[in-house]
Amino acid sequence: MSHFQFHLDHSDANSSGRIGRWETPHGTVQTPAFMPVGTRGAVKGVLPQQLKDVGSQMILANTYHLALRPNEKVVKELGGLHRFMNWDGPILTDSGGFQVFSLAELRQLDDDKVVFKSHIDGSLLELTPARAMQIQEDLGADCIMCLDECPPHDAPVSRLQEAVDRTTRWAALCRDSHQRSDQALFGIVQGGTNQKLRERSAEGLLPLDFPGYAVGGLSVGESPDEMYSTLDFTTPLLPVEKPRYLMGVGRPIDIIEGVLRGVDLFDCVMPTRNARNSTAFTSRGKVKMKNLKHQTDTAPLDPECDCEACTGYTRGFLRHMFMVGEMLGPMLLSIHNLAFYQKVVRELREAIQNNVGWAYRDEYLAKTNSNKTK
Amino acid sequence: MSHFQFHLDHSDANSSGRIGRWETPHGTVQTPAFMPVGTRGAVKGVLPQQLKDVGSQMILANTYHLALRPNEKVVKELGGLHRFMNWDGPILTDSGGFQVFSLAELRQLDDDKVVFKSHIDGSLLELTPARAMQIQEDLGADCIMCLDECPPHDAPVSRLQEAVDRTTRWAALCRDSHQRSDQALFGIVQGGTNQKLRERSAEGLLPLDFPGYAVGGLSVGESPDEMYSTLDFTTPLLPVEKPRYLMGVGRPIDIIEGVLRGVDLFDCVMPTRNARNSTAFTSRGKVKMKNLKHQTDTAPLDPECDCEACTGYTRGFLRHMFMVGEMLGPMLLSIHNLAFYQKVVRELREAIQNNVGWAYRDEYLAKTNSNKTK
Repeated sequence: MSHFQFHLDHSDANSSGRIGRWETPHGTVQTPAFMPVGTRGAVKGVLPQQLKDVGSQMILANTYHLALRPNEKVVKELGGLHRFMNWDGPILTDSGGFQVFSLAELRQLDDDKVVFKSHIDGSLLELTPARAMQIQEDLGADCIMCLDECPPHDAPVSRLQEAVDRTTRWAALCRDSHQRSDQALFGIVQGGTNQKLRERSAEGLLPLDFPGYAVGGLSVGESPDEMYSTLDFTTPLLPVEKPRYLMGVGRPIDIIEGVLRGVDLFDCVMPTRNARNSTAFTSRGKVKMKNLKHQTDTAPLDPECDCEACTGYTRGFLRHMFMVGEMLGPMLLSIHNLAFYQKVVRELREAIQNNVGWAYRDEYLAKTNSNKTK
Repeated sequence: MSHFQFHLDHSDANSSGRIGRWETPHGTVQTPAFMPVGTRGAVKGVLPQQLKDVGSQMILANTYHLALRPNEKVVKELGGLHRFMNWDGPILTDSGGFQVFSLAELRQLDDDKVVFKSHIDGSLLELTPARAMQIQEDLGADCIMCLDECPPHDAPVSRLQEAVDRTTRWAALCRDSHQRSDQALFGIVQGGTNQKLRERSAEGLLPLDFPGYAVGGLSVGESPDEMYSTLDFTTPLLPVEKPRYLMGVGRPIDIIEGVLRGVDLFDCVMPTRNARNSTAFTSRGKVKMKNLKHQTDTAPLDPECDCEACTGYTRGFLRHMFMVGEMLGPMLLSIHNLAFYQKVVRELREAIQNNVGWAYRDEYLAKTNSNKTK
């Protein structure tokens, strides 16, 4: 009996949205779900209990960053990622591939490996499919990712196809290397915004029978419309009965559009990064916390939110925290933005249950004045 | 009937330590008590509920900083300091005098006022006894301080005496200006480490019949022995039946030595500032969190502590947080250091109840290997 079971409970009658339960060794995730990002073993400025309080079920950590510091062997010696981070729920790690391509310097790529210089101290490191598996087994997340290659969105087709084929070859090597049965290894579909290449990628990966599939290579510079249309033809390529994870996406509206196209799992640094930059997501749209108009505003940040920031503090106080550079500004706004994201996926689950996924999207756009993209 | 009542419950048979209860409009403070410092309206990196969880009863905010940003009128418009900070317990504000002398530039001092340039933008501000009262009334703390002059510890006697006399004159003016009956206005004894000047200061202030007295002008560069001997001759000058507050002190051992000399209230930035600088106070002495020896240490920071940092995380994880500059490092260590300070005053209250104050001091020194100073 597998450590993992994915149960599809309901599919929206009018969209491709679906709700489910994903059983993992560290608990069941209600899908669709949003995973806060704990890059280096901590969601920046937010403690585990605070993550739970706002409804987070599963979190993500980054293999590249943790392999560089403190090193996966250190994490293992300290009891593995769950004990390390003090998070007893499910955890997902990426393969490190994305950061190798986005952060590291002087990459040398061939069919077997990628060699790169650390962005921290320039030390040379090699990442192979086997090494990506070893690192992620040492870290010990519940869900781990195959090593993939994520080219820029404007790469020529030949380059995109090369990445698809390398990603497929590496996926087979990852599957062969991976040993821990208490970890679900996902394959990653690449191919940019090109339908033929997405098909080619899915055709290569599906025979490997991964317990779940990620859509990579999006949110790398393409327009929202390109992302949505890519999902329109990509998610139908993936098995209905397995969880689908859209990597690194995105704005709340992108998550809504992704869910309505059949995605189950999301992660993004945006809620916490925007919080540190003093921008809040609210039920009335984005709020720039440093704006002078908040100076003596006794209203809560978001009257529809029941998080610690919205129930305990005025907009005037939150503005002051950012104006003087107090840590409580980023801390409270991070809690709020994560609460907002979790509220969106919670409401999406309810909307799908009621077969009104698109109506929820339309209401969201109307309330927040987001740019309507479909 | 006053909003404030101070009840002395017990005095140590072998030291000058005493335990009491201080009733304020926002709750009763068990004394001796340590007040975390929320300089600009927030204890850096620590949320109000976390302050309560570690046993904090009363907190401090700084008049100088809040008057500059966001300005006391803004705090008032936002509901006053309690609502502003989301802290429903007692709050104390200093008068701003100390920062004017330690931080501001280009001070011009005469008998009526001090004019200074803001350390933030160089704007000119004037602080008079009446203005110090108006600011503190607008901020709305439970306990407020007279405007005083705090000269350097190595100032000549003539200069110290001038400061004592100016502080006494200003105290009378503060008392005359102060109107809110729900605020306790404390007088501040000055005089450096000079016994005659401390006597002169107390003689000037006691006829003004303040509901409590602060000892100012310590922890400004004098040695611990000088501080303790100054307390030896200063606290007996103050009324037994009123609370005594030692401003800005200090290390845990200084608080212990202060309590045993009859002090009831303390504040200091040290627990949170040291935490941000990766230094922890523990039951075995100071711990430098970045030390390589903690890298794979699975032990808790302090096995005798039940705070969130010590029960949830390994030393190895805490070290990693500081090595990579994650906010959770300062956040967790601040919680721990404040928990440690609150544990010390809690244990002191118990030791005094059992008439073993000095024995507690000796045990503390033996356990932590602090420099024995008496």
